[in-house]
Amino acid sequence: MSNINNRSRRKFIQQTAIAGAGLALAGPLQVFAQTNNETMMKTNIKSRGYAGKDVAGKMVPWNFERRAVGDNDVLIDIKYSGICHSDIHTIKGHWGPQKYPQVPGHEIAGIVTAVGKNVTKFKVGDHAGVGCMVNSCMQCDSCKSGEENHCETTGMVGTYGTPEASSPTGITQGGYANNIVVTEHFAIKIPKNIELKYAAPLLCAGITTYSPMMKVKFRKGDKIGVIGIGGLGHIAVKLAVSKGAEVYAFTTSPTKINDIKSFGAKEVIVVKSAEDLKPYKGKLDFMISTVPYAYEMSPYIDCVKKYGYFTQVGQPINGELAINNFNMIFNRVNFNGSLIGGIPETQEVMDYCANNKIYPQIQVIKASEINDAWDKVVNKEARYRYVIDASTF
Amino acid sequence: MSNINNRSRRKFIQQTAIAGAGLALAGPLQVFAQTNNETMMKTNIKSRGYAGKDVAGKMVPWNFERRAVGDNDVLIDIKYSGICHSDIHTIKGHWGPQKYPQVPGHEIAGIVTAVGKNVTKFKVGDHAGVGCMVNSCMQCDSCKSGEENHCETTGMVGTYGTPEASSPTGITQGGYANNIVVTEHFAIKIPKNIELKYAAPLLCAGITTYSPMMKVKFRKGDKIGVIGIGGLGHIAVKLAVSKGAEVYAFTTSPTKINDIKSFGAKEVIVVKSAEDLKPYKGKLDFMISTVPYAYEMSPYIDCVKKYGYFTQVGQPINGELAINNFNMIFNRVNFNGSLIGGIPETQEVMDYCANNKIYPQIQVIKASEINDAWDKVVNKEARYRYVIDASTF
Ligand SMILES: [Zn+2]
Ligand SMILES: [Zn+2]
Ligand SMILES: [Zn+2]
Ligand SMILES: [Zn+2]
Repeated sequence: MSNINNRSRRKFIQQTAIAGAGLALAGPLQVFAQTNNETMMKTNIKSRGYAGKDVAGKMVPWNFERRAVGDNDVLIDIKYSGICHSDIHTIKGHWGPQKYPQVPGHEIAGIVTAVGKNVTKFKVGDHAGVGCMVNSCMQCDSCKSGEENHCETTGMVGTYGTPEASSPTGITQGGYANNIVVTEHFAIKIPKNIELKYAAPLLCAGITTYSPMMKVKFRKGDKIGVIGIGGLGHIAVKLAVSKGAEVYAFTTSPTKINDIKSFGAKEVIVVKSAEDLKPYKGKLDFMISTVPYAYEMSPYIDCVKKYGYFTQVGQPINGELAINNFNMIFNRVNFNGSLIGGIPETQEVMDYCANNKIYPQIQVIKASEINDAWDKVVNKEARYRYVIDASTF
Repeated sequence: MSNINNRSRRKFIQQTAIAGAGLALAGPLQVFAQTNNETMMKTNIKSRGYAGKDVAGKMVPWNFERRAVGDNDVLIDIKYSGICHSDIHTIKGHWGPQKYPQVPGHEIAGIVTAVGKNVTKFKVGDHAGVGCMVNSCMQCDSCKSGEENHCETTGMVGTYGTPEASSPTGITQGGYANNIVVTEHFAIKIPKNIELKYAAPLLCAGITTYSPMMKVKFRKGDKIGVIGIGGLGHIAVKLAVSKGAEVYAFTTSPTKINDIKSFGAKEVIVVKSAEDLKPYKGKLDFMISTVPYAYEMSPYIDCVKKYGYFTQVGQPINGELAINNFNMIFNRVNFNGSLIGGIPETQEVMDYCANNKIYPQIQVIKASEINDAWDKVVNKEARYRYVIDASTF
């Protein structure tokens, strides 16, 4: 994916948004929203969610405030919020010390209930989503070319846990809550032909796996391996299958075999030891690993063809992975990482999934079930993404 | 470097070799050699060298036998033999258990003193070298395309320590000795316009750094980083400078600054901590690391531009390196390894260095000084390659 492509994509999105806004101004909802805005512009938004209070990672109900809706902001009434393994790692301090209370959640889907006066991309009543970032400088080359996730000045502002002056709690607060205020640019338009509960997981699990797979520009029939068939992995399988790849799914859970075949994988490999990987040595055009813990990577990397790419998107504790350079000098594989994707590409995967009916396989839970769900995610019992019904906050 | 290029290179080399042999058959030296061969074909070759006897890694004089000169073999009277850090790692068991006694050394330069009856590439009196491998299957696609180092069937046969039926000692024995017997294909022609003592280090240090640098197809003015300015690194600097790169040399030894500048580096960065690397973040087109121990790689990898390549050629103990995936998802750098190079490319770097007067900076030592030299290599005191005068074995 070249920067030029990103730029043209983004321009297209901006133009579309402006056209939409023109129509919206005539609608009654927009008028209502504008009245509403007058108050919201001045007062903080009350929010009700679940927060972690310390490194123990027990999630408890919490009432807090978000910033008032600014001129470029939208207020989203959250309907569904996905549970990502990153939420758990972050709150438990696996990726570094945190500020608490902190509301995690970066797979957010809902309905726009207010817009700031400069907002052109959304009108009240639109379906909208928020993924892993809520701001960036918007001035640097990366931001201008639609790679806000790689903002070169401030860095991207994460959806939760990032210090933010405008937030009444001092840090961004995520989607395990009944609403969110976000700069319009960082909200994704969710088409009405995809249910909000299916849209939510696309905003992290979807884009995180879509972006690196699109970067390798694979062709129909190319062999793509996916390691770890959980929230991210199962969407990776579906996306790769949909794009014409022959998919090899590597899992440690034999109970997932039938599901994974139903997602379209050509082969499901249940890995008990490195021996099980030997038949695949040098066979795959590309491999993506969603495993969020340190694991013995080298025999997996060996499965990729020489000069091919292996992308690690799962983030282990403190980011630490062991790599064996004896394997690397022989396999000649390129190892890299990938961080979600930019806003235009997140919109792209959302639209692609809506139009092609690619839906994550989800389990809708109540807010009170979050702690139980987290345990199941860690124990690889999720099938395959927990999505919180936000009406239960 | 594409396989097609390799194939055409190799064909060229083969044709040149055949032409040379045609001329050679008329010469008096060849006749002498053929007489000599009759005996040598039948009897093992007596050899005198230095071997490690166990994992303690103390090198001691040792008399041993090599196989008789076969129809496709050449016998080389070794004149100079470079000391590579790999010799130390191997004998000390850092890369796995070894058979002893074992004679290390894979930077071998000498004079052909006998040739088997099928040999066409060499005649007696030719200068010849041996690098890191002495055989492979020669049948597989990799071997046929000049990537014998990546032989897909038997794997390459290392110059020392690899089990080999034809060797009287059961394993291949390397170049810390007064002679070697090797299949002609795995001997490199050393042009007479480069002194043998300078040619020796090109056979490992030269090709190991040349191959990955040529693979990235850098252009004049590209910024290339080299980490670890020892035997491999100093040649990497000279090669990259010669090919038109702007070279950034990273070292932990302030006493090397002037030398490295004299090699043509644009900047020498003395690294005391990761802080010293920050100014170079995202600045380099390519980085090669020759560091043969585990080290904190991530801040070095961060110095490469997004989507660029970082190649680790130094092999740490047991190959184990730690990589931080937080860095990898942000830096978007491709990490890979590289294993020497094939025979055609080894010939290429030899010819390139001879024609362009690129000589390693060496210190010639006597065999009795090997143990002392090894200590100095480990303590980063080599300036920059020890080469053993083989007349002292
Ligand atoms: Zn996530
Ligand atoms: Zn920016
Ligand atoms: Zn070496
Ligand atoms: Zn082979």
